[in-house]
Amino acid sequence: MTLVELEPLPDSAVAKALFNEYPSGVATIGATVDGEDVLMLVSSFTVGVSYEPAMCSVAIQRSSTTWPLLTDAPRLGVSVLSDAHSKSFHRLASRDTRSRSRDVALAHSASGALFLNDAVAWYDCTVVREIDAGDHVIVLLEVVAGSISPERAPLIIHRGLAHRTVHLPSTA
Amino acid sequence: MTLVELEPLPDSAVAKALFNEYPSGVATIGATVDGEDVLMLVSSFTVGVSYEPAMCSVAIQRSSTTWPLLTDAPRLGVSVLSDAHSKSFHRLASRDTRSRSRDVALAHSASGALFLNDAVAWYDCTVVREIDAGDHVIVLLEVVAGSISPERAPLIIHRGLAHRTVHLPSTA
Repeated sequence: MTLVELEPLPDSAVAKALFNEYPSGVATIGATVDGEDVLMLVSSFTVGVSYEPAMCSVAIQRSSTTWPLLTDAPRLGVSVLSDAHSKSFHRLASRDTRSRSRDVALAHSASGALFLNDAVAWYDCTVVREIDAGDHVIVLLEVVAGSISPERAPLIIHRGLAHRTVHLPSTA
Repeated sequence: MTLVELEPLPDSAVAKALFNEYPSGVATIGATVDGEDVLMLVSSFTVGVSYEPAMCSVAIQRSSTTWPLLTDAPRLGVSVLSDAHSKSFHRLASRDTRSRSRDVALAHSASGALFLNDAVAWYDCTVVREIDAGDHVIVLLEVVAGSISPERAPLIIHRGLAHRTVHLPSTA
């Protein structure tokens, strides 16, 4: 038996360092609102929050100025980034909302949802509810339609850097 | 402008296929309860749900028989799986709770939290609240202490298979 010593969390910088160790996919959320394309990058997107109904979630900073533009859109488009986006994901995270999508091709659905081309998957969503969680809000999304691109490989962010995946043998 | 056609979701099997496209890390949650080690694998774990306070979340099936054993533990240990766990993660997901940890080395904290050795990161957590979400419950966890192993590479699950990560250039 190993007895573990853990470091207590003194501040949010340590929390960020701890959280950087968890690898994740990256997604954008977007919609066309009053004729303008509104898009934001999210790294705390989660699928499989529920299967019946199909729900995913995303945690958004309370200080976000983009989310208030999206919250009332009838449909939100979620795009799962692929390795084709490895050079554009930093710009997608830019504070300058107008330059975010400069390096990517966008795709629009008739529902008003906004997607990225070359994504691994698209989820067409409605907002179910928003839940307070510290300095963020957890947004619960119901997936009402979707599309996948099995030929694409996903983009992974780990320790703040872009990665692709390589298959590992998984049976003992 | 590309106009997108999306497939409506007829059932949860389609939802599962859509969700399989999103790559994610994998984690275990565990505690020692009444002298017994209780451990469960979770794939919908998310970090960065909040930074102040530091919170993460996990979605757990309502039908889980392991979660009711863990929910009242004073501390829960979250371990982020590394590529060292690529051959043991299927067993960690087993319904047979006693055989789950047969292939892995466990580590215990004085707080009662239960961890996996060879993990990328450990988060020592308390339960903040549980939120209903369809056929799952979202459990909001506050991270009160933690530890990282920068020499470890994380395990990624994508399309149901184990992967490791390879760094990509990320500047345009």
